[in-house]
Amino acid sequence: MDTLELIKSLKESNDGKIVLLVADGIGGLAQKPGGLTELETAKTPNLDALAKIGVQGLSTPIKPGITPGSGPGHLGLFGYDPLKYVIGRGALEAAGIGFAMTDNDVAIRCNFCTTDAAGNISDRRAGRIPSDESAAVVQKLKAIKIPGIEVFVEPVKEHRFVVVFRGEGLGDAVADTDPQKTGVPVMNPAVHAGVQCPASEKTAKIAKEFHEQAVKILANEPKANNHTMRGFARKPHVPSYQEIYGLRSACIAVYPMYKGLASFAGMDIVGEAQTLAEEIDILKKEWNNYDFFFVHFKYTDSRGEDGNFDGKVAMIEEFDAVIPRVMELKPACLIVTGDHSTPAVMSSHSFHPVPTLLVSDLARTDATQEYSERAAVQGGLGQFEAMYIMPLAMGHAGKLGKFGA
Amino acid sequence: MDTLELIKSLKESNDGKIVLLVADGIGGLAQKPGGLTELETAKTPNLDALAKIGVQGLSTPIKPGITPGSGPGHLGLFGYDPLKYVIGRGALEAAGIGFAMTDNDVAIRCNFCTTDAAGNISDRRAGRIPSDESAAVVQKLKAIKIPGIEVFVEPVKEHRFVVVFRGEGLGDAVADTDPQKTGVPVMNPAVHAGVQCPASEKTAKIAKEFHEQAVKILANEPKANNHTMRGFARKPHVPSYQEIYGLRSACIAVYPMYKGLASFAGMDIVGEAQTLAEEIDILKKEWNNYDFFFVHFKYTDSRGEDGNFDGKVAMIEEFDAVIPRVMELKPACLIVTGDHSTPAVMSSHSFHPVPTLLVSDLARTDATQEYSERAAVQGGLGQFEAMYIMPLAMGHAGKLGKFGA
Repeated sequence: MDTLELIKSLKESNDGKIVLLVADGIGGLAQKPGGLTELETAKTPNLDALAKIGVQGLSTPIKPGITPGSGPGHLGLFGYDPLKYVIGRGALEAAGIGFAMTDNDVAIRCNFCTTDAAGNISDRRAGRIPSDESAAVVQKLKAIKIPGIEVFVEPVKEHRFVVVFRGEGLGDAVADTDPQKTGVPVMNPAVHAGVQCPASEKTAKIAKEFHEQAVKILANEPKANNHTMRGFARKPHVPSYQEIYGLRSACIAVYPMYKGLASFAGMDIVGEAQTLAEEIDILKKEWNNYDFFFVHFKYTDSRGEDGNFDGKVAMIEEFDAVIPRVMELKPACLIVTGDHSTPAVMSSHSFHPVPTLLVSDLARTDATQEYSERAAVQGGLGQFEAMYIMPLAMGHAGKLGKFGA
Repeated sequence: MDTLELIKSLKESNDGKIVLLVADGIGGLAQKPGGLTELETAKTPNLDALAKIGVQGLSTPIKPGITPGSGPGHLGLFGYDPLKYVIGRGALEAAGIGFAMTDNDVAIRCNFCTTDAAGNISDRRAGRIPSDESAAVVQKLKAIKIPGIEVFVEPVKEHRFVVVFRGEGLGDAVADTDPQKTGVPVMNPAVHAGVQCPASEKTAKIAKEFHEQAVKILANEPKANNHTMRGFARKPHVPSYQEIYGLRSACIAVYPMYKGLASFAGMDIVGEAQTLAEEIDILKKEWNNYDFFFVHFKYTDSRGEDGNFDGKVAMIEEFDAVIPRVMELKPACLIVTGDHSTPAVMSSHSFHPVPTLLVSDLARTDATQEYSERAAVQGGLGQFEAMYIMPLAMGHAGKLGKFGA
């Protein structure tokens, strides 16, 4: 029995609410060894007050030493083993623009490219045409019709766009059509070598038809006169929050990527917040409609990615400031964490474990006096894989029965 | 996806060097409860200085409560799941004498024994004949020829020796020929009961031929007039360091056993050091030729096995003294650890977790001020399985890309 099956068999319902408050990339590093991290530098009186009554620890997003992207990072936070439930690249790209995939969809990451008179690729990225130009060309591709299939074409950024085929019985074992070099033509969509899969053959045939129509439409474009297709992917087969936890669950996020990831877990996407304060407004408004809320704050990660230590400190302080408004709602269990660390000194996601704080009437309070990386080392939750955050939340919210008699 | 597959898919190369500095059996116990361990007693100013800028924790060699031998202990340190990658006893014995096995080899642990006129075993260990006498008898067995097969016969110690058959298509599912009692004859080599394996039948036939020739050669020996064969084993099927980590890897060790274990992982065995100082000389000399160095120091374990507390303290101090020479080389990531604990009060390997210290510019410094068992409990790496040391080293050396987008 794996952990999800166990949880599913033990789930119980009550009126308590669980809030998973994610400050993206909150974990960090000191600017020099022995110094203070971004979180240790920030003034966080509200989080520190919670540390005194709650219990904290360090969560490892994937495995020690492994740096997660946003996809696996969030799947782990949502309770799924991120090495078992892998999101295909096309599906992740669709999530990134907030496209809500269904079980009948295959999503594909597409790049505009430039081909010469002989049909060979001369630029794999069509000169990285600006997003607005690209979006106008994508608009033309919306004219493509394929019998029996619903086709979606959506812009992403620069030369990138997403195509989704919706129809019965479509497989995703289709190879990339990007030859990864110039001087040769775009490849024909085909099922992966050695794979027998009629459903994927159907997808490959549709993709070929799409490409043929696209090339005609693009014929007179100066740069984007062709396109490649990569990362064919169905929606990941992730059991829903309703199924595993029996939770009516809601996602409150500003960025499309996180809404897309939450939709894989079957969460409702609620509100159209543009700021953290608006996210908390929505949390309050929807409080009685759901049992679980995933609230995502992006800018701790953004400033970390920018290498802006002080900026990240400021974002952590902004995050701290909304804590009293969350606590006013009296969640049965509040978790404060990140999907990974994003140390400003690295300007990137990192493998370092994430300080994770749990507040509940059932928390066994530890001796820590502040929410920080150093304190978390001494915390009562110890070090654990992020996929256990949800079982801990369920337990602390009194929503799991006893295993065995 | 398991961790090795994950690492393999994420590996990246850069100029940074990783040093895995192993003080065998370094973890210990106090002489009485509440006292200081060997490591806590030793004066280790250099290791303590690294503790202040690095991050430490406790690594569990196999699973809690399980005491490892040198084989599984090192496989774990090298990043392999020691419960998945098991080294057969014959292969371990071959490693122990530094015999470099190939994929075409089957190695066998042999014991000289004494049989009476009726052919029954009267002494299973041939009176534990001295090593020099035994080696002379082994020399005679080198005369054995088997068509189509290369045969190696090498002395070990006292009544023990190793036989290796090298040839195409040899299996190792062959049962021991030692009846484990006296008054009965040595058994004929045969494939394990119930197993269908032509490759192992071939090996059994060769072993029978070897034994028949050996008995003729040994006929006039006063004690060692016969022999048994145990632990038939091929080389373990371990993916190489080059394959998993993309690392050009080197082993620097004094004792043959550790060279043999490193060779299973595909490491080059470099130099012929006889002392720790010479090992560091070789490390310096080979610095630009490799990406990864496993440096093994034996005597912490030896003194522990001897039950010599003060002797082990002295060996730890000797180990500490070379640390500045290692740090001068500026490794991107240095790991200091042991393959297990060897408390002098137990005079044996033990199950206790091992203080493990990591130094790197990307280390999230913890609050510990010295390298010791007590400090490691408070360390930022927490407690983790030894097989995660290599992923941690790779991450801290900047040699792993992001998992997922």
